[in-house]
Amino acid sequence: MDEFKVTPWDVEGLVDYNKLIEEFGTSPLTDELLEKTAQLTKSELPLYFRRRFFFSHRDYDKVLQDYESGKGFFLYTGRGPSGPMHIGHIIPFFATKWLQEKFGVNLYIQITDDEKFLFKDKLTFEDTKYWAYQNILDIIAVGFDPDRTFIFQDSEFTKIYEMAIPIAKKINFSMAKAVFGFTEQSKIGMIFYPAIQAAPTFFEKKRCLIPAAIDQDPYWRLQRDFAESLGYYKTAAIHSKFVPGLMGLEGKMSASKPETAIYLTDDPEEVGRKIWKYALTGGRATAKEQREKGGEPEKCVVFKWLEIFFEEDDKKLMERYHACKNGELLCGQCKRYLIKKVQEFLKEHQKKRKEAEKKVEKFKYTGELAREQWDKAVPEALKG
Amino acid sequence: MDEFKVTPWDVEGLVDYNKLIEEFGTSPLTDELLEKTAQLTKSELPLYFRRRFFFSHRDYDKVLQDYESGKGFFLYTGRGPSGPMHIGHIIPFFATKWLQEKFGVNLYIQITDDEKFLFKDKLTFEDTKYWAYQNILDIIAVGFDPDRTFIFQDSEFTKIYEMAIPIAKKINFSMAKAVFGFTEQSKIGMIFYPAIQAAPTFFEKKRCLIPAAIDQDPYWRLQRDFAESLGYYKTAAIHSKFVPGLMGLEGKMSASKPETAIYLTDDPEEVGRKIWKYALTGGRATAKEQREKGGEPEKCVVFKWLEIFFEEDDKKLMERYHACKNGELLCGQCKRYLIKKVQEFLKEHQKKRKEAEKKVEKFKYTGELAREQWDKAVPEALKG
Repeated sequence: MDEFKVTPWDVEGLVDYNKLIEEFGTSPLTDELLEKTAQLTKSELPLYFRRRFFFSHRDYDKVLQDYESGKGFFLYTGRGPSGPMHIGHIIPFFATKWLQEKFGVNLYIQITDDEKFLFKDKLTFEDTKYWAYQNILDIIAVGFDPDRTFIFQDSEFTKIYEMAIPIAKKINFSMAKAVFGFTEQSKIGMIFYPAIQAAPTFFEKKRCLIPAAIDQDPYWRLQRDFAESLGYYKTAAIHSKFVPGLMGLEGKMSASKPETAIYLTDDPEEVGRKIWKYALTGGRATAKEQREKGGEPEKCVVFKWLEIFFEEDDKKLMERYHACKNGELLCGQCKRYLIKKVQEFLKEHQKKRKEAEKKVEKFKYTGELAREQWDKAVPEALKG
Repeated sequence: MDEFKVTPWDVEGLVDYNKLIEEFGTSPLTDELLEKTAQLTKSELPLYFRRRFFFSHRDYDKVLQDYESGKGFFLYTGRGPSGPMHIGHIIPFFATKWLQEKFGVNLYIQITDDEKFLFKDKLTFEDTKYWAYQNILDIIAVGFDPDRTFIFQDSEFTKIYEMAIPIAKKINFSMAKAVFGFTEQSKIGMIFYPAIQAAPTFFEKKRCLIPAAIDQDPYWRLQRDFAESLGYYKTAAIHSKFVPGLMGLEGKMSASKPETAIYLTDDPEEVGRKIWKYALTGGRATAKEQREKGGEPEKCVVFKWLEIFFEEDDKKLMERYHACKNGELLCGQCKRYLIKKVQEFLKEHQKKRKEAEKKVEKFKYTGELAREQWDKAVPEALKG
């Protein structure tokens, strides 16, 4: 379990999440915090929280305090539009939607077409703008409140440059290098980019809560170094685990390994065949051996996907776990069950994605929060 | 004459301009080019060209060819708003005005409030925005065509960020460091800034001509390295010498040494006293010695200022030169003559500066060229 590596660009190996909490210096998302979340929202926790898909945080306790005391908070997340979105990308958006809905707060979604163009040698700016639009459809399909959600694309909402300038005066090359591993060959756009990414944490003079996979944490550590010197809050975050690819629990689902990923625009029938063919299970070499020794659900991608997203019902999930352990279930049965769940999800998502085409304008320009942001002057403290 | 240093931030020592042409790898502004300028514009050359205040260039020959062949060109210059403008700052704008008027071309004036905030530790963003407004008044007072001139402030015309992104993908830290001397301590905003400064050279798909002091040349060398790979022209430039401060011919008039500079908003009476008290002349130790040996106009700031800007009449200037050499003129006489000229200039300028308050909106937002730029999409090639 020693060989794993987590940076904002790579996740390799089987991840030891407790070790990540220690290494990143974050805090575990405790039972107490989750109970308080349930209590404040007067809701049952969704599976992302019940099952600790979100497992770590920074200052989430303070976010809850701010909510309780009436100060409030806001949500910020984003997407780097370098290609089609897969299931691993969209799950945190569902968790974010739950938070928006239950706490009734504003949400800012940054589409970083500048970042992806700058960091990916082979992508043109036209490419990342194309994917920006495509990805926005997937995001809207999740079902956010169009009047409390502002989706903005860096290359369009260039006001963000003005906000990034005071931030970019707080970070020197050495600091950025330490966090992001820049070299002499890094393009000056890449070097500047952390300032653009930090800017939305200052969109409101409240605490900002970022739900994101833990590999994104380094970006926010820099923000937390200088935020208070600009008269703002250090951003808070809740960190998710990674959604593994079809072929193994190591690492995360990756768009660069298409056979391991389920894209949101994939044809559901094709997806069925892909899962059937590629999904790694915790099964034994033969059906006979499996019936005798039982399967190993902790080594099984099919079970992991059900756990993370596709089996809403805790009781059913546990029954499946035990049935597998006891050798009562064969892998084909589980695969078929997962395939049905994934296909249902994709059909529903693709329907909503189609409807989203008519909603893009509202989320980007004409919704209440969008209009407010386009009209708003730059926050006082960011005036330098 | 060996000890001089020219970077975009410092000009020190008595400058050997021929050596600069060699070191910077630029070309001398030849008689032939100046004659062609006169011929194409059907105009007498202004003193800035006649007297070789502009002395060097890159591709100005090609600019003239483009003009002659009907392809045309455009002008681009700028101002870093870190404080009040002095005489040394405004002279190149008068030369630029002549070029705009005679060639009938568009002019883009970048007000780099972002740059000055980022590069100057002690300036707030509010400071540089304040000075941006003040400086714009001085620039408008020069008398540009409001429908062919677009004055834009980086922090407002943030569309420039989108244009800078593809440029920022062409420049790596090592390249930027070589030109600008960045270090590990340089702020990431400073490191990105060369991309913002290069963007306006792509505002039109014509050759861009930048009239600027030679110390600004390094910025454009970078642009010339990658412009063609984006499908654009390498920018052309004509380079001016420096306007010396009152107290010596070395270096250039500097806002950080107030006793050596004449600000455009200075009280004309005060200016008279300042020149009288501080101006270095080429005079001898005593009036007697001066009458016997003659003065040394080549060592005289008063003469240099008359030569660069304040004595329009070539014949009068040469008469003064010889009269000084022959011991017929004493320094007090020259100082009084210069004081009168400077005071006349300032009174006129300050009148126009007052009138400029009503014109800011036109130059920044509502003039023909301004409107076109605010409405325009990003140039094709810069889409990446």
